[in-house]
Amino acid sequence: MITSSANPRVKQIVQWQTKSKERRKDGIFLAEGLKMFEEAPLDRIVEVYVSKDVEDQLLAAAKGKTVDNFAGQEMRAGIGEKLKQVGYEVVTPEIFAKMSDTQTPQGILTVLKRREHTLDELLDHPNPCFVLLENLQDPGNLGTIIRTGEGAGITGVIMSAGTVDIYNPKTIRATMGSVYRVPFLYADDLAEVMDRLHEKGIHTYAAHLKGEVFYDSFSFKEPTAFLIGNEGNGLTRELADRAKSYLKIPMEGQVESLNAAVAAALLMYETHRQRSIFDV
Amino acid sequence: MITSSANPRVKQIVQWQTKSKERRKDGIFLAEGLKMFEEAPLDRIVEVYVSKDVEDQLLAAAKGKTVDNFAGQEMRAGIGEKLKQVGYEVVTPEIFAKMSDTQTPQGILTVLKRREHTLDELLDHPNPCFVLLENLQDPGNLGTIIRTGEGAGITGVIMSAGTVDIYNPKTIRATMGSVYRVPFLYADDLAEVMDRLHEKGIHTYAAHLKGEVFYDSFSFKEPTAFLIGNEGNGLTRELADRAKSYLKIPMEGQVESLNAAVAAALLMYETHRQRSIFDV
Repeated sequence: MITSSANPRVKQIVQWQTKSKERRKDGIFLAEGLKMFEEAPLDRIVEVYVSKDVEDQLLAAAKGKTVDNFAGQEMRAGIGEKLKQVGYEVVTPEIFAKMSDTQTPQGILTVLKRREHTLDELLDHPNPCFVLLENLQDPGNLGTIIRTGEGAGITGVIMSAGTVDIYNPKTIRATMGSVYRVPFLYADDLAEVMDRLHEKGIHTYAAHLKGEVFYDSFSFKEPTAFLIGNEGNGLTRELADRAKSYLKIPMEGQVESLNAAVAAALLMYETHRQRSIFDV
Repeated sequence: MITSSANPRVKQIVQWQTKSKERRKDGIFLAEGLKMFEEAPLDRIVEVYVSKDVEDQLLAAAKGKTVDNFAGQEMRAGIGEKLKQVGYEVVTPEIFAKMSDTQTPQGILTVLKRREHTLDELLDHPNPCFVLLENLQDPGNLGTIIRTGEGAGITGVIMSAGTVDIYNPKTIRATMGSVYRVPFLYADDLAEVMDRLHEKGIHTYAAHLKGEVFYDSFSFKEPTAFLIGNEGNGLTRELADRAKSYLKIPMEGQVESLNAAVAAALLMYETHRQRSIFDV
């Protein structure tokens, strides 16, 4: 059991929590919480740290000892089994609090290998729906877009280099596990990506103030990509000018724009709606 | 100009920023940033604090001196005029940083009178669409729901007493000004509110795992209220059992639920879509 914050592994975790460069250099990311461990793909888990008190609960649950309600119990039993399978390091609750990025830690932290896709992999899809994010800055927004994107069944998320780090601990938590499953990549040049999409016959739509047609008047049944811009400034002119169509989301009152994750959700679920109706 | 953090007004602002009880006791809330001041209703402004450097910019803009691009310039000129009209207190940038809740303050902070609606006021609407929030905990989610709600044209938001403080500085910022315009109230007993809604012929829909019908299969053209539950636990059984219908949002992959603000947005904009088509 690790009991000292001077322990080099504890120091390493704190570095990874706070420094995106360190995470990138080592090709890893951190995922906190029971659900993020429960859903972590086995072949990508590097290390797991568990707080002593939480270890006791999880192992008791795995032995069938009821500690609380059944639903939670069943999940904890599964997590206890998975922990025994992958192996883990125990730390004191005090040390865990130091390693954690959250104010009320759940007592389990997973270190995982990164996995990004190439554009060719993403384009190898018969009828894709992509979301292109330009310089999104809010970690929660990005995580919510990944989560909603899995729910709406999109093909992948392509981000400009200036977009917030998807491996930011806040982003990871906001994905609720979808980061393990939704393909994504960072592109050095999003304009080049758009050219590639157009060559492949994928229609690009910019959510833009210049839009004169409401989003639900377009058909997204064919290959589609949505461009979502920075929270404060929207899309850059360079990128907006490249889009094949502008669309707008109707807004009542004095609202000038919607939250980026909300705008993306409306577009992705409109696509889901149209494609589901199409399937029937 | 206030230059000392020992100044009682500075101390008062810091108290208001950090303690919801103090804000409630004094019947006020704080709104930071240019946009929040720009949109603040004149009859509700109590005090305004401006950082010296920002004051210089805003007054220069009001005199027609171009300091940056035209769009920002026009907004700043309007804000400079409004400042002169309502009066304000200047503080040093260092003191402003202490008064601010944000890491990169915009240098303007407005103290406003609260204004909540009664249930009778909200119910005085021919074809309402309400959002009922039970124990939502994330300030950003609440603010985003208020903002999206104005955009979708809902009638109002009714919150359980256990919902996060709408006057939390993070919530206020996330509303992007919609908090000034969307009617809302905190209800001691949301179950009682549901009974009142039913008496008035308003149909209540719970976003719930028990839902077997997709949300876009219902008609929301008639008086409607949506129930949204806590981020982690969903709706309590007491409230869910009272709902007239359960609905579900389709989810692909392994997604078990959507972010509360995203779920609310999909329901509110589906209502907007149905009612717009109905109008035409």
